[in-house]
Amino acid sequence: MDVDPDGGLHGGYKLKLNSYDLGVDIELADAIQRLRFEHPQVGAVVIGSLKDRVFCAGANIPMLAGAPHPLKVNFCKFTNETRNGIEEATTESGQRYLTAINGTAAGGGYELALSTDHIMLIDDGSATVALPEVPLLGVLPGTGGLTRLVDKRFVRRDLADVFCTVEEGIKGRRAIEWKLVDELVPRSVFAERVGERAMEFAESSPRPADATGVELTPLDRTFGEDRVDYSSVSVAIDRDARSAEFLIKGPVEGAPNHPDAAVSLGAQWWALRAARELDDAILHMRVNELTIGTWIIHTEGDLDALLDHDRFLHENADHWFVNEVMLMWRRVLKRVDVTSRTIVALVEPGSCFAGMLAELVLASDRTYMFLGSREDDDRIAEMEFTASSAGRLTMSNELTRIATRFWGDDEGFDAAIAVIGKRLDADGAMEAGLVTEIFDDIDWDDELRIIFEERTSFSPDSLTAMEANLRFPGPETLETKIFGRLTAWQNWVFQRPNASGETGALRRYGTGLRPDFDKKRV
Amino acid sequence: MDVDPDGGLHGGYKLKLNSYDLGVDIELADAIQRLRFEHPQVGAVVIGSLKDRVFCAGANIPMLAGAPHPLKVNFCKFTNETRNGIEEATTESGQRYLTAINGTAAGGGYELALSTDHIMLIDDGSATVALPEVPLLGVLPGTGGLTRLVDKRFVRRDLADVFCTVEEGIKGRRAIEWKLVDELVPRSVFAERVGERAMEFAESSPRPADATGVELTPLDRTFGEDRVDYSSVSVAIDRDARSAEFLIKGPVEGAPNHPDAAVSLGAQWWALRAARELDDAILHMRVNELTIGTWIIHTEGDLDALLDHDRFLHENADHWFVNEVMLMWRRVLKRVDVTSRTIVALVEPGSCFAGMLAELVLASDRTYMFLGSREDDDRIAEMEFTASSAGRLTMSNELTRIATRFWGDDEGFDAAIAVIGKRLDADGAMEAGLVTEIFDDIDWDDELRIIFEERTSFSPDSLTAMEANLRFPGPETLETKIFGRLTAWQNWVFQRPNASGETGALRRYGTGLRPDFDKKRV
Repeated sequence: MDVDPDGGLHGGYKLKLNSYDLGVDIELADAIQRLRFEHPQVGAVVIGSLKDRVFCAGANIPMLAGAPHPLKVNFCKFTNETRNGIEEATTESGQRYLTAINGTAAGGGYELALSTDHIMLIDDGSATVALPEVPLLGVLPGTGGLTRLVDKRFVRRDLADVFCTVEEGIKGRRAIEWKLVDELVPRSVFAERVGERAMEFAESSPRPADATGVELTPLDRTFGEDRVDYSSVSVAIDRDARSAEFLIKGPVEGAPNHPDAAVSLGAQWWALRAARELDDAILHMRVNELTIGTWIIHTEGDLDALLDHDRFLHENADHWFVNEVMLMWRRVLKRVDVTSRTIVALVEPGSCFAGMLAELVLASDRTYMFLGSREDDDRIAEMEFTASSAGRLTMSNELTRIATRFWGDDEGFDAAIAVIGKRLDADGAMEAGLVTEIFDDIDWDDELRIIFEERTSFSPDSLTAMEANLRFPGPETLETKIFGRLTAWQNWVFQRPNASGETGALRRYGTGLRPDFDKKRV
Repeated sequence: MDVDPDGGLHGGYKLKLNSYDLGVDIELADAIQRLRFEHPQVGAVVIGSLKDRVFCAGANIPMLAGAPHPLKVNFCKFTNETRNGIEEATTESGQRYLTAINGTAAGGGYELALSTDHIMLIDDGSATVALPEVPLLGVLPGTGGLTRLVDKRFVRRDLADVFCTVEEGIKGRRAIEWKLVDELVPRSVFAERVGERAMEFAESSPRPADATGVELTPLDRTFGEDRVDYSSVSVAIDRDARSAEFLIKGPVEGAPNHPDAAVSLGAQWWALRAARELDDAILHMRVNELTIGTWIIHTEGDLDALLDHDRFLHENADHWFVNEVMLMWRRVLKRVDVTSRTIVALVEPGSCFAGMLAELVLASDRTYMFLGSREDDDRIAEMEFTASSAGRLTMSNELTRIATRFWGDDEGFDAAIAVIGKRLDADGAMEAGLVTEIFDDIDWDDELRIIFEERTSFSPDSLTAMEANLRFPGPETLETKIFGRLTAWQNWVFQRPNASGETGALRRYGTGLRPDFDKKRV
């Protein structure tokens, strides 16, 4: 991928993709992250290329055909998170994306285009947009494609059906009429028109024209055989128990005294550093440690210091960098929500579940809290929920985690909101419905051992599926539909012999042989 | 199943289930249907038994373990439709269901209880409710269980997680506190209290106390090798093309002149007869003809006669029987929406897509309409949408099919609503966005042949999955979440080796051997 920071456009930015595969997807995610933090002045981003075939699903097909099921599923999830991040950049960060297609945008490439705000297609009699997954590969446009067609671009369902079966795609006027693209541009003025459009978008952006960016310096991390260590996050794996202990260390210093001081701290500021490290740890564990089925979340540190940083984030929410850091936490917490592992938070003496970290208590499948103190230690377990739990750290369903937890239970919701800003001990947390169960020193170790052993004995698949259903009560949105309905069907299709079997479409693609299907409809 | 029409309760009705399996599910669906049509006076239905184990998932486990994937999927879909029908009876038909549990309601049995309005549990120190699918079978409570827990009964997600992993279930006070049941009743007064509750429900029901029921007489049907024929519906199978032609014949007589006349016609009234026959044909084709991937919907008859019946249904909507017939059409059309076949409607000269039958045009994945007339026939293709498309025949998403079709497109919606009550030719229908494409006599046969041949060449699985995503834009409801998110994940789990493989939990259950899982989380 070629990144051109000004690309000839004042305040604009061009991402050039030459082909499209998992590697590109990781680069893309990184580029988007950097655009938000390192280039505060950039108000519009153009995704496009000077090559004929801008986006091509072809490049990633061998990977998909040969790849094991977990990698495919992980790839789709990560790709969806990246696309959702593009949409978040537009709505929350003032960095608007547009796509300039001067060739063919097919498959994953067009799905990427769908995540941008504005799609421009060259009108040269041959350039098309296409979702050829069904006719070519026997799988779905599963990284948001089907959902964004009907739920974002509002393509009529029968036209969407036709579009998704036309291998060669749709071009010209019809692409406009069916709402597949926003603008059709003659070849002679394509580059010029793209520039104009990017300029318009950039000019309407609220991003600061002259702010200094924050460099996303390389993460400080060390991989051991059974652990990963960052400056403020560590993960210790117990392979026999098939569980991992995540430990997030709270800040040792107080919050910066001004947003400029936060910018000076940059990637070393605890609030950004911890978020990036946790994000990295989550992705590492998701992709590289498939058999570690239970993630146990611990925190450690000074509640007051943490609350100071949390307060600072809220008080300076209108500063571009502080805003970006808050949004980074939102994205990290959303990754937890859709991670296919059992997540259990343990609130113990010395832990610092407060502010944005308290959201981990609510993002977990279950939370256990220590009642009273340990034999050799006077401290008790305490938590404190803040504005972070009542405001911007929403889930994919656009609700806060408290609203989701008490969906359909107004009394419970009111009781939980009432304890925001209060220091909660185990009894208080239990009473407010914010933890699953509390155990004292006598029971803590035994009860947890039994719980984790039992969990580990269950079918990993049924746990994944159960959690995917219980975590999202209430309304569904574009994002939850992508992770719930679309992803679930794609996962189903991926493992069917018609896709990945010896004679399936994914394996046969490119061999010159036609797939041989089991004809039964299910 | 034992059906006791008065069960000692005035206006009450008891269904006794001794065990629970697919056979019972079909009987149950039939019993519910009969309750609505044959017993207009019944305002409350108690589901329960005098045996110790009222509902037991055990009975259907051998079926699930040994059953092929399509049968499992079909079973779950049908079961879900039955449960949704129970909820519809309460909200739309005034027939309220309650469950009386005097033993153990586990698995499918408790899922059935979840679909009723009120769950009563005996408080005898041993009776429990349970969803043991995850710990026992490595699959999901997939016939609505997970969704109804969090989206209907509003069980908190972490408590739902615990509940779904406790094999032996939850009893007594905790079952109330976690909202798993509505009422805990001492053994000594159980029968009495159930009777009282049923009486209360019956008394508040708007159903008529003294109306005559309509007997659901056996269907008039003949099975041939490649066809099924009913009085007003026929299905002809083309095995080479892997398609089936459905033909629905409109009424030959006008509508009854009074609801009493409709009651006298009973099951012979076209509006009820055609609905029952179409319902039966759909279920037959779904379960018994798995390789027939495309259903082509034709109608034939007099548009005016059909509109007369449709008008009668709307004008007499407050009559219990007319209401039931309209709801029957709603349920049949909802079955089409969730049927995993490509559905294509063909509007031709002589067809009668009007009123409730016009909904088939909108329920289809695509609709093609004949432009002009055929060489040897002066007639042209016409359609007429009515109040049926703007009102009560809603989909599972609680929107009309027109609202769903034009989701996010207010202009398109207004244009479609504007043609309600108008006779539409092909150009008019195309302009209003109500058909996918129109072809004249020269192109009709060739174009359709190519379309159907192409469709048949695609992977049946990718079509199922694509259609499941494109058919439900817009808001999600309890029902759409069950058919979309929950069902998709259950289908995925069913085919994983951890469930149905040689050492999977479904196969190993009852053998005394523990399942051997692939430990990877996906």
